[in-house]
Amino acid sequence: MRRLLDLADLGREEVLALLALAARLQHKAEPQALAGKILGLLFLNPSLRTLASFQAGMARLGGSSFVITPGQGTWQLETRAGAVMDGAAAEHAREGIPVLASYCDALGIRAFASGQDLAADLAETTFNTLAALTDKPLINLESAVNHPCQALADWKTLDDLAVAPTGRFVLSWAYHPRPLPLAVPAAVLHMAALRGMDVVVLRPDGFGLPEPIMAKARRAAALAGGSVRESNDRREALAGAQVLYVKEWAATACYGDAAEDARRRAALTDWCVREDWFETAAPECRLMHCLPVRRNVAIADAVLDGPRSIVQHEAYNRLTVQMAVLYRLLKGL
Amino acid sequence: MRRLLDLADLGREEVLALLALAARLQHKAEPQALAGKILGLLFLNPSLRTLASFQAGMARLGGSSFVITPGQGTWQLETRAGAVMDGAAAEHAREGIPVLASYCDALGIRAFASGQDLAADLAETTFNTLAALTDKPLINLESAVNHPCQALADWKTLDDLAVAPTGRFVLSWAYHPRPLPLAVPAAVLHMAALRGMDVVVLRPDGFGLPEPIMAKARRAAALAGGSVRESNDRREALAGAQVLYVKEWAATACYGDAAEDARRRAALTDWCVREDWFETAAPECRLMHCLPVRRNVAIADAVLDGPRSIVQHEAYNRLTVQMAVLYRLLKGL
Amino acid sequence: MRRLLDLADLGREEVLALLALAARLQHKAEPQALAGKILGLLFLNPSLRTLASFQAGMARLGGSSFVITPGQGTWQLETRAGAVMDGAAAEHAREGIPVLASYCDALGIRAFASGQDLAADLAETTFNTLAALTDKPLINLESAVNHPCQALADWKTLDDLAVAPTGRFVLSWAYHPRPLPLAVPAAVLHMAALRGMDVVVLRPDGFGLPEPIMAKARRAAALAGGSVRESNDRREALAGAQVLYVKEWAATACYGDAAEDARRRAALTDWCVREDWFETAAPECRLMHCLPVRRNVAIADAVLDGPRSIVQHEAYNRLTVQMAVLYRLLKGL
Repeated sequence: MRRLLDLADLGREEVLALLALAARLQHKAEPQALAGKILGLLFLNPSLRTLASFQAGMARLGGSSFVITPGQGTWQLETRAGAVMDGAAAEHAREGIPVLASYCDALGIRAFASGQDLAADLAETTFNTLAALTDKPLINLESAVNHPCQALADWKTLDDLAVAPTGRFVLSWAYHPRPLPLAVPAAVLHMAALRGMDVVVLRPDGFGLPEPIMAKARRAAALAGGSVRESNDRREALAGAQVLYVKEWAATACYGDAAEDARRRAALTDWCVREDWFETAAPECRLMHCLPVRRNVAIADAVLDGPRSIVQHEAYNRLTVQMAVLYRLLKGL
Repeated sequence: MRRLLDLADLGREEVLALLALAARLQHKAEPQALAGKILGLLFLNPSLRTLASFQAGMARLGGSSFVITPGQGTWQLETRAGAVMDGAAAEHAREGIPVLASYCDALGIRAFASGQDLAADLAETTFNTLAALTDKPLINLESAVNHPCQALADWKTLDDLAVAPTGRFVLSWAYHPRPLPLAVPAAVLHMAALRGMDVVVLRPDGFGLPEPIMAKARRAAALAGGSVRESNDRREALAGAQVLYVKEWAATACYGDAAEDARRRAALTDWCVREDWFETAAPECRLMHCLPVRRNVAIADAVLDGPRSIVQHEAYNRLTVQMAVLYRLLKGL
Repeated sequence: MRRLLDLADLGREEVLALLALAARLQHKAEPQALAGKILGLLFLNPSLRTLASFQAGMARLGGSSFVITPGQGTWQLETRAGAVMDGAAAEHAREGIPVLASYCDALGIRAFASGQDLAADLAETTFNTLAALTDKPLINLESAVNHPCQALADWKTLDDLAVAPTGRFVLSWAYHPRPLPLAVPAAVLHMAALRGMDVVVLRPDGFGLPEPIMAKARRAAALAGGSVRESNDRREALAGAQVLYVKEWAATACYGDAAEDARRRAALTDWCVREDWFETAAPECRLMHCLPVRRNVAIADAVLDGPRSIVQHEAYNRLTVQMAVLYRLLKGL
């Protein structure tokens, strides 16, 4: 394994091997495994869990890391090919990425979606451009429509808590004041499908996940013996559900049109998850969210603070799975 | 010792033991004592000494650290219970603190006073709310009315320089363009009282330290055989003083009223410490300040650059005492 | 060697020894050479390569580092002597520098030119003031008119690529929307002269390097058997050139006069290096630049992406030479 850009690149067996490695390192520390190794972390967008857990993970394995945050300590990076750079950006990624990569043994890059051009975001235009600039081991710290570390952490959390491999997994849209990227819903949908679950995407009309994302998930489900479908009927979708995975995202029917997105979401403030959402769910139905979450906007306090919530477990597993990723990339098998 | 939130939690004997440990580590390095250990540092407010000295202290003991700074690389954290999070903050501390704590072996948190509600600040409402969110070893990096690391560093500095345990310690208000928190004056007052010194708080009318802070210091003085009183008479307060500890703070008579505070302090620009302040002090009277200090506003260049000043020694002892705190929290006795 | 402030302080033999040490460490790692050592990095101005490569370099040698960035996590530092600090800066460098130095084994400081007062910048007034505040091992991370780490990296790059020691080295001005400091052109000019090359400074009228910078380079050239001269004739300057080193800088004829600088540079947008610049150069003529570079403003894509460009090699050598500097400062010979 040379890069972690998309779980789909790995295949199901390699994902399972990574999860097994994560469990092994969790139970038997290897504090010198990556001694002398350096991870470079380039954040074109803000972070909390990713920033902390990757630094902690390298340290737990005996390595070290450095962080570069354009706009804060470092100037803005240009990413467009052929740009005449007479604006704010002082450096092009064509220089910046290979230079940073040359100082470290593995590089992580976060580059969110533009939110303007759906086709470009679905094609991972920006991230792929950046990734092509180095052949060092590379980790996707969240790109336009992917977040493989989050997906791995969530898979491990489902395993840790013995959630039935074929149980119903409902990925539900929730309200947020602004249109957020499709990275987590796309990655988590694919993860649940690849795990073989009975996946339902619950969302209002106009917020359906783009067909390429759904098709990719259906292909993963077919491989794993699961299924993927959409619904806008909350009670039906959640009937017998083992998991409600909540996430906010942009209106895909008007992607990039901020005014129309705002108009549509203004009518959807009742998509704040409350305890009564679980009426038809399985009694033990879990609540998942990748965090950060806006309390009492996307999910009510009572649900987040109640026994269903496993959001802390998910966040902790960012550390455990990423240690496995770092180990695999920097030490091999 | 599981947490360092307030020297008053430790008691005099444990403080003396910590200072002894600091001296031991200073003279006999233990470069592997905390190998593999990770310190998380969460700064809700800016820092220089704390930021650098905690990272350096972990490194000197063989451990490592990561830094999270909401607003810079990380989004703002909400701290109010029950908040409907439709504003700027993207994450609640109820998620953020336990997540960060799960990635490290000890967590440090800086959360300044609101400066708006004296009762809430005296009750450490915000810091205590945050501290209750994790049971990991925790360090107060400065809260509304406390700064135990500064107090420990100052105590060690007094010991290093053999300042008489029962000598006169004058904590004096000084001018600053803005109302600053009560954290350092409260912590340092308590420290000097607990050391058993003859403590005088010198301040203009309207700037008296709140009664709960004074009462806590009197209790510490009673235990240690010292005394605590207030004065607004500079010559009298400084008569025979061994130490002049200078600090800027808000007008407590109108706490939270920025306009009235500004009006009061505008008349007090002569509270800039100059050499003539020391006329009635002991010849060897020391000048202390926690830093940062505004030169020629709170203290004149000549005093800061003169032989009385031990501000560098205090700042260096941030490192030595914090290494002892880290050692105790992460390695035990 | 106690400090790296200016290659001129070292002399040619010590520079050659540093370059040999860099090559040695590059080929035979010493991952524990600086175990337990701490580097403090103070950035008064933004950075990418310096920030990443110094952290990586310490880690490669087994040490660690901390970063302080006034304005981002840390308040602004005042540097003027005697300032009445009633403005934005909360701390004076007279406190900040010695405090930070007391927490680490070596300190690096970046403090760009004022760009206002040529005499003060040429005298390194600010950097020298800061450097005088500590006697710890100190590294100049770029000052008003110097950047010794860049100069070392460039020298090593010339050696790595076997560029003839007496070949023609053309330092050319290039267009940039704003007046940039003289640090890199001054340091690189001196480096090429000290290497013994046939150096030509190619620049428009009004952009000549100040006489003290030229005189220092001529002295270095005299020692090394090389030469230094100026030209405003591109074809003539580049005739037979082995290296074209491109850099943007301020109009020295009106230093500090932003309006006049803007007026002058507005007419010079054709000073964007394109392939036709190399018509009279040697066939193997290299393109160098310290980065960051504004693509299609200072240098065209085709040149940066073409076979002449060795800018990545230069950037990588920041790491290799700085490891040698750290080794020499913190471990000695």
